[in-house]
Amino acid sequence: MNVFNQTHRINQLSDASAVAQALAQQFAHTAIERDRQGGTPKDERDLIRQSGLLSLSIPEEFGGFSASWQQTLDVVRIFAQADSSLAHVFGFHHLHLASIRLFGNSAQWQRWYQLTAEKSWFWGNALNPLDKRTIVKYQDGWYEFSGKKSFCSGALDSEMLIASGLDEHTGKLLIAAVPTSRSGITLYHDWDNIGQRQTDSGSAIFERVRVEAKDMLIDPGPLSTPFSSLRPLIAQLIFINMFLGVAEGALAEAKQYTSKETRAWFLSDVEHATDDPYILRHYGEFWLELESLRLLNQHAISKLQWAWEIAEDLTEQQRGEVALAVATAKVAATRTSLDISSRIFEVTGARATHAALRFDRFWRNVRTQTLHDPVEYKLKDLGQWALNDRYPKASFYS
Amino acid sequence: MNVFNQTHRINQLSDASAVAQALAQQFAHTAIERDRQGGTPKDERDLIRQSGLLSLSIPEEFGGFSASWQQTLDVVRIFAQADSSLAHVFGFHHLHLASIRLFGNSAQWQRWYQLTAEKSWFWGNALNPLDKRTIVKYQDGWYEFSGKKSFCSGALDSEMLIASGLDEHTGKLLIAAVPTSRSGITLYHDWDNIGQRQTDSGSAIFERVRVEAKDMLIDPGPLSTPFSSLRPLIAQLIFINMFLGVAEGALAEAKQYTSKETRAWFLSDVEHATDDPYILRHYGEFWLELESLRLLNQHAISKLQWAWEIAEDLTEQQRGEVALAVATAKVAATRTSLDISSRIFEVTGARATHAALRFDRFWRNVRTQTLHDPVEYKLKDLGQWALNDRYPKASFYS
Amino acid sequence: MNVFNQTHRINQLSDASAVAQALAQQFAHTAIERDRQGGTPKDERDLIRQSGLLSLSIPEEFGGFSASWQQTLDVVRIFAQADSSLAHVFGFHHLHLASIRLFGNSAQWQRWYQLTAEKSWFWGNALNPLDKRTIVKYQDGWYEFSGKKSFCSGALDSEMLIASGLDEHTGKLLIAAVPTSRSGITLYHDWDNIGQRQTDSGSAIFERVRVEAKDMLIDPGPLSTPFSSLRPLIAQLIFINMFLGVAEGALAEAKQYTSKETRAWFLSDVEHATDDPYILRHYGEFWLELESLRLLNQHAISKLQWAWEIAEDLTEQQRGEVALAVATAKVAATRTSLDISSRIFEVTGARATHAALRFDRFWRNVRTQTLHDPVEYKLKDLGQWALNDRYPKASFYS
Amino acid sequence: MNVFNQTHRINQLSDASAVAQALAQQFAHTAIERDRQGGTPKDERDLIRQSGLLSLSIPEEFGGFSASWQQTLDVVRIFAQADSSLAHVFGFHHLHLASIRLFGNSAQWQRWYQLTAEKSWFWGNALNPLDKRTIVKYQDGWYEFSGKKSFCSGALDSEMLIASGLDEHTGKLLIAAVPTSRSGITLYHDWDNIGQRQTDSGSAIFERVRVEAKDMLIDPGPLSTPFSSLRPLIAQLIFINMFLGVAEGALAEAKQYTSKETRAWFLSDVEHATDDPYILRHYGEFWLELESLRLLNQHAISKLQWAWEIAEDLTEQQRGEVALAVATAKVAATRTSLDISSRIFEVTGARATHAALRFDRFWRNVRTQTLHDPVEYKLKDLGQWALNDRYPKASFYS
Repeated sequence: MNVFNQTHRINQLSDASAVAQALAQQFAHTAIERDRQGGTPKDERDLIRQSGLLSLSIPEEFGGFSASWQQTLDVVRIFAQADSSLAHVFGFHHLHLASIRLFGNSAQWQRWYQLTAEKSWFWGNALNPLDKRTIVKYQDGWYEFSGKKSFCSGALDSEMLIASGLDEHTGKLLIAAVPTSRSGITLYHDWDNIGQRQTDSGSAIFERVRVEAKDMLIDPGPLSTPFSSLRPLIAQLIFINMFLGVAEGALAEAKQYTSKETRAWFLSDVEHATDDPYILRHYGEFWLELESLRLLNQHAISKLQWAWEIAEDLTEQQRGEVALAVATAKVAATRTSLDISSRIFEVTGARATHAALRFDRFWRNVRTQTLHDPVEYKLKDLGQWALNDRYPKASFYS
Repeated sequence: MNVFNQTHRINQLSDASAVAQALAQQFAHTAIERDRQGGTPKDERDLIRQSGLLSLSIPEEFGGFSASWQQTLDVVRIFAQADSSLAHVFGFHHLHLASIRLFGNSAQWQRWYQLTAEKSWFWGNALNPLDKRTIVKYQDGWYEFSGKKSFCSGALDSEMLIASGLDEHTGKLLIAAVPTSRSGITLYHDWDNIGQRQTDSGSAIFERVRVEAKDMLIDPGPLSTPFSSLRPLIAQLIFINMFLGVAEGALAEAKQYTSKETRAWFLSDVEHATDDPYILRHYGEFWLELESLRLLNQHAISKLQWAWEIAEDLTEQQRGEVALAVATAKVAATRTSLDISSRIFEVTGARATHAALRFDRFWRNVRTQTLHDPVEYKLKDLGQWALNDRYPKASFYS
Repeated sequence: MNVFNQTHRINQLSDASAVAQALAQQFAHTAIERDRQGGTPKDERDLIRQSGLLSLSIPEEFGGFSASWQQTLDVVRIFAQADSSLAHVFGFHHLHLASIRLFGNSAQWQRWYQLTAEKSWFWGNALNPLDKRTIVKYQDGWYEFSGKKSFCSGALDSEMLIASGLDEHTGKLLIAAVPTSRSGITLYHDWDNIGQRQTDSGSAIFERVRVEAKDMLIDPGPLSTPFSSLRPLIAQLIFINMFLGVAEGALAEAKQYTSKETRAWFLSDVEHATDDPYILRHYGEFWLELESLRLLNQHAISKLQWAWEIAEDLTEQQRGEVALAVATAKVAATRTSLDISSRIFEVTGARATHAALRFDRFWRNVRTQTLHDPVEYKLKDLGQWALNDRYPKASFYS
Repeated sequence: MNVFNQTHRINQLSDASAVAQALAQQFAHTAIERDRQGGTPKDERDLIRQSGLLSLSIPEEFGGFSASWQQTLDVVRIFAQADSSLAHVFGFHHLHLASIRLFGNSAQWQRWYQLTAEKSWFWGNALNPLDKRTIVKYQDGWYEFSGKKSFCSGALDSEMLIASGLDEHTGKLLIAAVPTSRSGITLYHDWDNIGQRQTDSGSAIFERVRVEAKDMLIDPGPLSTPFSSLRPLIAQLIFINMFLGVAEGALAEAKQYTSKETRAWFLSDVEHATDDPYILRHYGEFWLELESLRLLNQHAISKLQWAWEIAEDLTEQQRGEVALAVATAKVAATRTSLDISSRIFEVTGARATHAALRFDRFWRNVRTQTLHDPVEYKLKDLGQWALNDRYPKASFYS
């Protein structure tokens, strides 16, 4: 079966995993080349559009598949095994859908959910709250966004953007959903980093961009309630599943290589590298790290789902429980993915550094994305809980 | 409420955890002193006898409480938070009950289960399969055990023993259930080790001990089927829950101490030790390790329970799945308990080395018991799975 | 040759190492028993007195041996291989001699050096600057010390004390050399900690203790110049050499045990434990850690010696260079000694936990003493240098 | 001062370090671009030729500078701070010179030393002893080399090659010095790996290449004596100095970036990233690792120099001492360079992943070169020493 140029499409929720796997297989064929090129993975994004998976997390009544967070994040993880750039923009698309659900009112998100499902819209990011260069002015019944924004992953080739700016008077963060094609928005092809090379996480400029009042996410607004504060936790879980997927992908490639290509070291007492006691030791540690991470991830996802279903009634403490589980998994995901993606070389050997294999991309991808927010402060959050019984404070990063 | 001299007793399965906690609290009051003394914790063993918890894992139809493995191992863990010696002999009691279920026929285990529940028997260990000094001779309708045996945890002050020896002709391992008071059995008070000081893990001598044929566990016999090979995995899970309990107990003491006693270092910029960034970092790592371990433990226990319920139909591969989950949790339990029990001092400070606190006992206990079988070979087992798709081979240690 | 009851005595500087080794061998015979007992090692302290090694660092012109810091610290390390309590009080004796040299004027230290050499005085500690409970009142031409002092290592059975208190008016730290037998001084036998059990690091009470003006170390006084600020660095180097000695002692015992006693694990493919690939891996890491530490230690000692010889002309920056080298070695010594003293059990096995061997004392000793000051702040000092080009600030701990 | 297009030249030995620094500065300007391109750094190789540094290790009497190994390896390390590909081929050039000294007779090496000094020859590698595809046939007074050879670092653009093959009858390894331009030698531009991208470590084909008897290094031949067995230790020391240089280079860039660019995390209590307690902690660890490595490296170099001067009288045990010191430093160099080159991102932050900075090259370079031989077997060698008093066995890798 030729996997190229095939269209894989989800018809019912139970297809999600198989369709994701088939897509991931297709992505894998070109992942090495696309990592080299960088830029926008237009063909792959279109395959995702056609797959129906962009509607995965949208409730059925609005044309989607009512996937649980476990099911949505599974697809992120499966994509990441092959290509963590696509996993990122795909995951963030669902984060943006969650954002309008959490920050907006039902009239807003229901309309956008319906349109997204109907038209296979891809949502992109222009929210970076630490970049304070975009200013929002209230005009007569509408809002004007002006300024720059960095780290706009998946904004290029998107239909809709989640954009943020600071209120010119109060300095308050304001967030809106805006059509990407809106006049005054310029997206730059300036993302050229060592990893996550096809996420288009470059910069944007807003020049007097008009945003209608009805597109402002101010009811209830960002991080305004414990429930709306789930948003950053979903973002973190997307990263966790990306990192887990990368680690799993790296391990799968390494296992293949050790088994098929690696020669026993001439000073070992074994004939096959697969019997080398030290190579087995490395694989043993890989397994231990991955299993721990898988369980921490599942635990965090189930906490999120529980909180998601409590919805507007979610208390601060319940939100804290989710945040703690997510922070725990995040530290593990960071460490595990960095460790495995670097150590696979010790179990594959010198010839595995051949550029055609591009095994370094696993490390480059997680090395880049794990810097989204400093893992040391997640560890501190865990300490605040363990020692002082304090849950992580809600912010755009925890 | 004075916890001393109280009798806590389980009336129904749902009491188990509360009764265990109450007992653990009592044990805690004397744990430091008993760690100093070593020897047999006679009073505490009797409290356990009176508590009814020795019948926990026995099916209701034979007078017990039909506890799941999760429930039984929870008690092991709760005991270990206060006193890992008692956790050990208590856990092993249930291991011995499982052993007669797995190695013997239904006539055998049903009778012993009934007697154990009725008379609150405590079972002890004389099985160590690596100690090959005890020889078994088949006599006319009965068996004679002669020789030495080391590491007989919980044999002193027990009513029944699980004993092993090698068939004089075939060298095959033979196991029997024998009343501890049987003529010819001498148990030595010679356990004086750096940790697990009240487990009585000393030596025994069998001098022409008569064992009736009906008390030999040869139908189906040890490790004879995938199901009967669950026995070592139960042993490993008891260790895992001991180590987890010790780590939790150590952390609880450390947290108390840091909060109440530890002074902020004069070079830090904080007023309270509880705000020190490096102390928080340590606690963060403790939390991460413990959470990972807790989930790995739960996962392994649920695998065991699943296999236990499949019973005689268990396949080799299914047994392999359990073994893998158990080995994974074992490596984590070993590392985590050693790390936390040593590092608690970094978050409590110099004065926490006061002998009256005896905070070193946590490390001494896990340092001793984690040597039961070398963790490096568990790690190798994990590697065999991750690289070569091989499940751990059944043995008395995996 | 029977090493008991022998008197070993240094006649010339080149004997120092051999005499130290001979003494260490004697100490080793009773180290296990004395670790059990705690208390004051009176016999061993007297052997040290008789050995002449208390004059090691005293210049020849005052009756000593003019040992370099390398030579003095070598003896500390050699003692620590066998008994780190004796290493501690011996090392601190020389620290106190250095303190009077650094904090006092030549009339003071020359007299005390002469007396110490002549009478084989042992100096003890009552300086702990973080314990602010002792107050000094200036009387008519003399000073009165009143209050408590903790962590007074080696004060019991000493002839002289270095004592500190705070000026009742200015709060300034004042330090004096006082005969231990001076009226008003009470030393408590209250040191009962998990390690360093024969250092007598208990508490003292000063009740209106009279100190003559000529015995006050106020010219130039503590930490008053870069040169006088070498004192804490010498203290740190004593700890470093203790930790290194403990690690070396632990490794030597482990090596002996693995070679003679440890059995190959039944699942390994080797006949002797000494060929086990994982045991070899542990030893390989022990070696790596120890070699690194030995070189860092030597480097730090040579920096100290260089600064010591520059003496009063020492600049702040030169003092900073010493402090940096010392802090680097201190972090390594802490980590290495804790790691090796805990991991020796992995290469010796379960039977090595026998209390008669008391192999846990290595870990207990370094676990206790490494808490003298938090290693995290030494690491921070290294970071201040590596990132911000700042040398450690002089204090009683850096 | 414009460093481009400048010629830096050594006139006397004391210039070596300054000339190396000046060259390294020039290399640094194009290192990022050349890492991208791969291929042969022809201009930079010519600058090295013109610098005179290719004669560094050649005795003065043959036209060189009589540099010690410390001086030669210092240049390797300085180059590696800027460009580890050039460090590699430069270091290996001197390894090849050492090889003819060690494997050949004085008539051979004296002639080649003279020619190399005179003509600024660059020597390249075609020795890989694990690649057994090249066969040597003895013809009538000469030798014929035929077959393939991989990992021929620095062979392209070299004047001379050290080539190896197996004797067609005995299978013995035969090594020769051959002009690179010799008929029948084809060098492929096929090195395209993730790191060390300008080392040209690709493949060669020998098609009936004629090698004169006088150019065969068979008197005394490879690894034939303890002295000739120093060759692999020199190779390892070149790697050690490359790894150390890379780590130093990475740290220097990171320090610059943290100081100038990195913003304090919004959840920290500090204003500048340079005051962040966790960033300081990372730098502290970098310093500790680097200092340890620097001392282990110096120690190993001084051992090599000592052995080099003993020359033909070197005993097996003395060679063992060098091998041990080298193996120790090699493990540290591997770990330290991998750790620092990966962790610099944690102290610089997300924006430091910008491809224009290409900070990932440090990790890619050491990740590639550290696989030359498995570090686990070096660790095992250390264990053989620490536990069994066995020195590393001489081979082409230890």
